[in-house]
Amino acid sequence: MKTAFALVLALVLIGPAVAQTASTPAAIRDAALTDSTAWDVLESLTTEVGPRLAGTPAAERARDWAVAKLRELGFSNIRVEPFPIQSWVRGAESAEVTGPYPQKLTILGLGRSVPTPPGGIEAPIVVFSTYAEMLAQPEGAFTGKIVIVNQPMRATEYGAFGPNRRTGASEASRRGAVGYMTRSLTPATTDFAHTGASNPIAGVTPIPAAALSPPSADLLARMAARGPPVRVRMKLDSAPGGSTAWTVSGDLPGTTRPDEIIVIGGHLDSWDVGGAVDDGAGIAVTTAAARLASNGGRNQRTLRVVMWGAEEMAFAGSAYLAAHQGELSKFVLTSESDTGADGALAVRLPVGALNGPAFANLAGLLEPLKVVVEPAAATGAGDDVSAIIGQGVPAFSFRLDGSRYFDLHHSADDTLDKVDKAKMNQMVAAWAVLLNLAANSNQNFRPPPALAPAR
Amino acid sequence: MKTAFALVLALVLIGPAVAQTASTPAAIRDAALTDSTAWDVLESLTTEVGPRLAGTPAAERARDWAVAKLRELGFSNIRVEPFPIQSWVRGAESAEVTGPYPQKLTILGLGRSVPTPPGGIEAPIVVFSTYAEMLAQPEGAFTGKIVIVNQPMRATEYGAFGPNRRTGASEASRRGAVGYMTRSLTPATTDFAHTGASNPIAGVTPIPAAALSPPSADLLARMAARGPPVRVRMKLDSAPGGSTAWTVSGDLPGTTRPDEIIVIGGHLDSWDVGGAVDDGAGIAVTTAAARLASNGGRNQRTLRVVMWGAEEMAFAGSAYLAAHQGELSKFVLTSESDTGADGALAVRLPVGALNGPAFANLAGLLEPLKVVVEPAAATGAGDDVSAIIGQGVPAFSFRLDGSRYFDLHHSADDTLDKVDKAKMNQMVAAWAVLLNLAANSNQNFRPPPALAPAR
Repeated sequence: MKTAFALVLALVLIGPAVAQTASTPAAIRDAALTDSTAWDVLESLTTEVGPRLAGTPAAERARDWAVAKLRELGFSNIRVEPFPIQSWVRGAESAEVTGPYPQKLTILGLGRSVPTPPGGIEAPIVVFSTYAEMLAQPEGAFTGKIVIVNQPMRATEYGAFGPNRRTGASEASRRGAVGYMTRSLTPATTDFAHTGASNPIAGVTPIPAAALSPPSADLLARMAARGPPVRVRMKLDSAPGGSTAWTVSGDLPGTTRPDEIIVIGGHLDSWDVGGAVDDGAGIAVTTAAARLASNGGRNQRTLRVVMWGAEEMAFAGSAYLAAHQGELSKFVLTSESDTGADGALAVRLPVGALNGPAFANLAGLLEPLKVVVEPAAATGAGDDVSAIIGQGVPAFSFRLDGSRYFDLHHSADDTLDKVDKAKMNQMVAAWAVLLNLAANSNQNFRPPPALAPAR
Repeated sequence: MKTAFALVLALVLIGPAVAQTASTPAAIRDAALTDSTAWDVLESLTTEVGPRLAGTPAAERARDWAVAKLRELGFSNIRVEPFPIQSWVRGAESAEVTGPYPQKLTILGLGRSVPTPPGGIEAPIVVFSTYAEMLAQPEGAFTGKIVIVNQPMRATEYGAFGPNRRTGASEASRRGAVGYMTRSLTPATTDFAHTGASNPIAGVTPIPAAALSPPSADLLARMAARGPPVRVRMKLDSAPGGSTAWTVSGDLPGTTRPDEIIVIGGHLDSWDVGGAVDDGAGIAVTTAAARLASNGGRNQRTLRVVMWGAEEMAFAGSAYLAAHQGELSKFVLTSESDTGADGALAVRLPVGALNGPAFANLAGLLEPLKVVVEPAAATGAGDDVSAIIGQGVPAFSFRLDGSRYFDLHHSADDTLDKVDKAKMNQMVAAWAVLLNLAANSNQNFRPPPALAPAR
């Protein structure tokens, strides 16, 4: 009886003894579509941490959350890698028309903006409907004025409109302005301001800079069109925060080729007003996909999930390169997920990768997900991996449905409810298939060395 | 020569002497579709005044704007009718989770909420997913707590969800709560809080009350579901403002029956965060429609456009009744436009009105606008006219496409860009046709006196 009882107890304790069998890439793909890991990770990050700008206490909570989450999900070799940053932390902000039609404006200061004096600045405005028109004005044209650029961003043309936010304040200052406000870089017309980094030009007197919500930008344009001078008061406060950020990573070690490392991930930091889609979703998708791709620890190459610690101010990628210069030759493939969670449309691979065996079946495996394998080489694989890609690490890149992305981007509306679980899981499935194939191949994705030029 | 020259000059000065001919109702309808009056009125109000809560300086600017606009548009007998209000003016507001997961919350205090002490209140929360569940709790159940009701409003069921905002704080207070926050009354999930009046129950200790944005309400629910107590700090400031509001009206006097008055309009006041759709659009539509309906001053009955001065706190309708008790018998028909500008779907008339000649052609005239004349009697003709309707003034009511209305309602996103000019002009056309028919009829829309009951 005693022996029999002990045997029964042992069975109860270890649970049903179903032998775990290796899954095929197709089975991994299908399992991903109903897997809850990505959603659970994102729900946890947005609930327990929330917005997490580098340099703030929230970024430290995010670091601790990341370590605990990777451990909980079975990652090993968990690393917390500090690196120096120059942080910028938002204080109280407001803007209003003081005359002739007093109204409040919806704004967010731009990252790196200088603060105004405590009482704010008040000045007449000059409004341009394009950035080019503003740039066409001569030196001294804006003396004593606040410059407004009210140029709606077309669709997803974020890159083309970048200067409006990044260098507009410096360009206005060069022409005498005392303040600068740009229409938020979004095609949406909801009353959210969308923040983001500005990049003051060295040697130009810095002036306070903010993003206006589209309705507030339109309002100023309508007021200005009436003729009489429109006066605006803007108050921006900000201060440096902490001088350290942390990139957190964890590995699913390869069984037979642990020193061949596939480096993927998202960025852990976010703007101080959102952070679910940008880039909680990237963290969630890559973490979930790596686990599924490892297929219960059967991955031959190492899968490394990296949560970069300061993308928004563009520090983390170069820090990661500097810290990992010695092991770059071990990095066989890389990509970052950082354009939302609305589903993958296409993927691109390193030049020549489709000539080898690793991805021979990729197109067929992704077809049910409606993800196309494009023949062109990967581009835009992520801000945090561009530095290591620049050093020769092969990259792949997913192209996503970005039609809603800039409605939410860098705004307070970037919240968990905006994420569609099914669309996010379609991405998890596509990533998991690709990672599973790559992690169980011995294909070298680096281009063959160039032939020495003929003499 | 001298005489001939003077004649030529006179012709030049008075412009082309085209005799103005009377338009038909169909021609008025068609002209309305491309008329710019409604848009111009709304553009002017939102640009030159903006949000205009009763009791604030903006409400005084709105009053002056209304007088000038009615004059500019050719109205006469312009009246400014003051009436007493108990105003409530928002001060600084904020709310945040202090632990275990510190995050900021997006809120707007509810109208009539008491302020918190200057340092705010901080307390553990209790979250309910329905209002009924909260009401089911016994006395003392919430002692020392902040009560959260996170019940998403279904579609346009604003009325059914009214108690969540209006009496929730009193009901929570009865059960011991120290603060109350309701999920905003909106089906949308954007990160806007939607304010509105609360109606504290007499004799119940008032507690601070606010509306949460849907994402913030969901966030609190997710945090609370984890088990450990969640603590929230809320800070609300408010103060009484001015004690007078103004209803402004103007007439297009009737040619043959000036003492038969059709009373239409919208409300001039708005919440302090929006006011384009609610109810700038109502002002714009009715003002434009009355002008078109008058057909160059040919209206036989008087068309009166009223801009009621304090709808949001529900004072203006009864004040209007009190001030006009003596001329109620002159009011032949009334309606208010106060559910947006997304186009009319249907109209209802006073009981029996379709039996007379006035509206015999109405259905055919509205058919090209895709507006249906429904046989049922008018309902919900507007908060500001319900008091005079209660005294027997016949009413008509348009039913609008309200599918977007509560996405914007009482939020900062209620801005001019949300108005579709073509949809608004479809409303102008429908109103103008109806008003033109009514203003040129001698039909009495009051029901015939009831027969004396048989003895």
